[in-house]
Amino acid sequence: MPDLTVSQSGERELLKKIFRKRPAPSSGLLVGMGDDAAVVRPKKGRELVYTTDTLVENIDFSLKYFSYRQIGEKAMAANLSDIAAMGADPIYFLLTLGIPSYTPVKEVMKIFEGLRPLGKKFHTDLIGGDLSEAPFLFVGLSMIGEVKAGEKVLRKGAKPGDFLYVTGTLGDSRAGLEILKKNPSLSETSSSFKFLMARHLTPAPRVEEGRLLSKQGLATAMMDISDGITTDLVNLTDASGVGADLLIDELPLSAPLVRYAKRRNKNPYSYALSGGEDFELLFTVSPKSVNRVENLIRSGKIKAKAVGKMTLKKGLRYIDKEGRKIIIKEKGYEHFIPRSNE
Amino acid sequence: MPDLTVSQSGERELLKKIFRKRPAPSSGLLVGMGDDAAVVRPKKGRELVYTTDTLVENIDFSLKYFSYRQIGEKAMAANLSDIAAMGADPIYFLLTLGIPSYTPVKEVMKIFEGLRPLGKKFHTDLIGGDLSEAPFLFVGLSMIGEVKAGEKVLRKGAKPGDFLYVTGTLGDSRAGLEILKKNPSLSETSSSFKFLMARHLTPAPRVEEGRLLSKQGLATAMMDISDGITTDLVNLTDASGVGADLLIDELPLSAPLVRYAKRRNKNPYSYALSGGEDFELLFTVSPKSVNRVENLIRSGKIKAKAVGKMTLKKGLRYIDKEGRKIIIKEKGYEHFIPRSNE
Repeated sequence: MPDLTVSQSGERELLKKIFRKRPAPSSGLLVGMGDDAAVVRPKKGRELVYTTDTLVENIDFSLKYFSYRQIGEKAMAANLSDIAAMGADPIYFLLTLGIPSYTPVKEVMKIFEGLRPLGKKFHTDLIGGDLSEAPFLFVGLSMIGEVKAGEKVLRKGAKPGDFLYVTGTLGDSRAGLEILKKNPSLSETSSSFKFLMARHLTPAPRVEEGRLLSKQGLATAMMDISDGITTDLVNLTDASGVGADLLIDELPLSAPLVRYAKRRNKNPYSYALSGGEDFELLFTVSPKSVNRVENLIRSGKIKAKAVGKMTLKKGLRYIDKEGRKIIIKEKGYEHFIPRSNE
Repeated sequence: MPDLTVSQSGERELLKKIFRKRPAPSSGLLVGMGDDAAVVRPKKGRELVYTTDTLVENIDFSLKYFSYRQIGEKAMAANLSDIAAMGADPIYFLLTLGIPSYTPVKEVMKIFEGLRPLGKKFHTDLIGGDLSEAPFLFVGLSMIGEVKAGEKVLRKGAKPGDFLYVTGTLGDSRAGLEILKKNPSLSETSSSFKFLMARHLTPAPRVEEGRLLSKQGLATAMMDISDGITTDLVNLTDASGVGADLLIDELPLSAPLVRYAKRRNKNPYSYALSGGEDFELLFTVSPKSVNRVENLIRSGKIKAKAVGKMTLKKGLRYIDKEGRKIIIKEKGYEHFIPRSNE
């Protein structure tokens, strides 16, 4: 019966399949899946960190270019990225699946398979969940992390004079989405295209980088970039009560993005500024810690780049190579874009 | 601008409205909404309890007979019920909203209003969430509870000879749903009908009862009844490795349910056995504790009734007044009902 749909299999059978795959309980996990709720014994001296993020069909992904496995992997990455942005270690998660009844059971199992690589890499176990029938697919995680008291890094905490850093490269995910929407055949796709598509489909959460920065006390503020650096930097400056000078020409761009933008006759910086779902970390570093951060970068322990400075003067300013203020029209991604009748 | 839709208002504006309503941080809450994740300092000697449950439009509710406020209230009740079933105290929750873009903002705010009465009653604060556009409405909570080490009550733990109890009355919610689906006008609805509809729309989670039983160490096993006592009792006996004799005539029925079933020429016990979403607690009590439980019942501290006994012999048997085994065809509710082609 390899091609049973969810409605043919029945909820109980599906839950049994899922339970069979549950991980071995770790020392802190007293009750895992299969009871009314999971029970966890918190570690001494640790604070607990909670986040939740859901991917919705035709809003956050399309089955035209996402495999079920990739949807699972991306939902995992999005939640891990929030935990990373606190400087915390992910430990457990709960899963909510809304599944159309016509979905083949084997595809549902692939969502679970997609959770596994990042779950294993970052030692994060599934401890509970909820399975619902739904008119379309949605995949939500609630993730639990832990961080030593005193090590967490918030959005507030940036001071004027702090240096602004960002991990990885920006804008790839947005470019990848553009390519995916055109649904190219595999033979057409260059390695550049493949890189950009993979950055959209299976982004890499910066858990190790976040942990390293928090453990060593190097970041004064931190958040992940999910709506584009323009939007998210404003969130960070607002929370910290400061402003920022963003050095446009310093924004880290991947070679594939530069090639892609050139081919499309577009400015790659517009992807970097307003592209969503980069899942890179944005963090600030006080002048006294800059050398230590630069050493981590040089030694390859963290891939990051200074892209600006925090200022006493509120507001976000874009600065070019010559130190001149410039005006940028591009805005970060926002859901529910307001109509322009204001 | 009182009738703006979600798409006209924009996500950021909506989030601002929601943030404005956030509760004051409690002592254990170090970071509430507005950062990448919430941060909580766990209390000494407490274990943490996690559950998640989502209500999906046209599967778990219909906007034809649910107000937005009631959807919020029911999502809260369903999650509180799971925490109650562990004998734990609810402390925090995260909220996931999937909202069609045409939804008026004021209706979204009513979902939040619906969360408040039970949240206030049981001291449970919103600490984070995720707002997504979606083709239809869904409302999911992830709830965090706490319980003193040693006080939690699981599904496993029932022993042969233990008495089986259930709180409240059974089957009301299913009958209420039947009435709601016929969409009666208010003038038609008797007080019996109103009682049954309310039991479906705004069920009462048995948090205090669960806490009382766990604190006094009176329940050997416990779970909440969300899929009908037939289905859920099998889950409890399977987890405990025992069987059960269920005394059909002892099942607690409300007077409105008895009247309703009579009017429809139906057996009220079939509602009680297989009706879903009762959100009552099913628990087992060892013979040495039965007197203490009966005292709690007599003093009005808990509304519950003995409805059977756990047995060494596996399986669930229905027993009538005369002690004879009877056969019942009704089954508990299951999502994704398998097609009968097997």
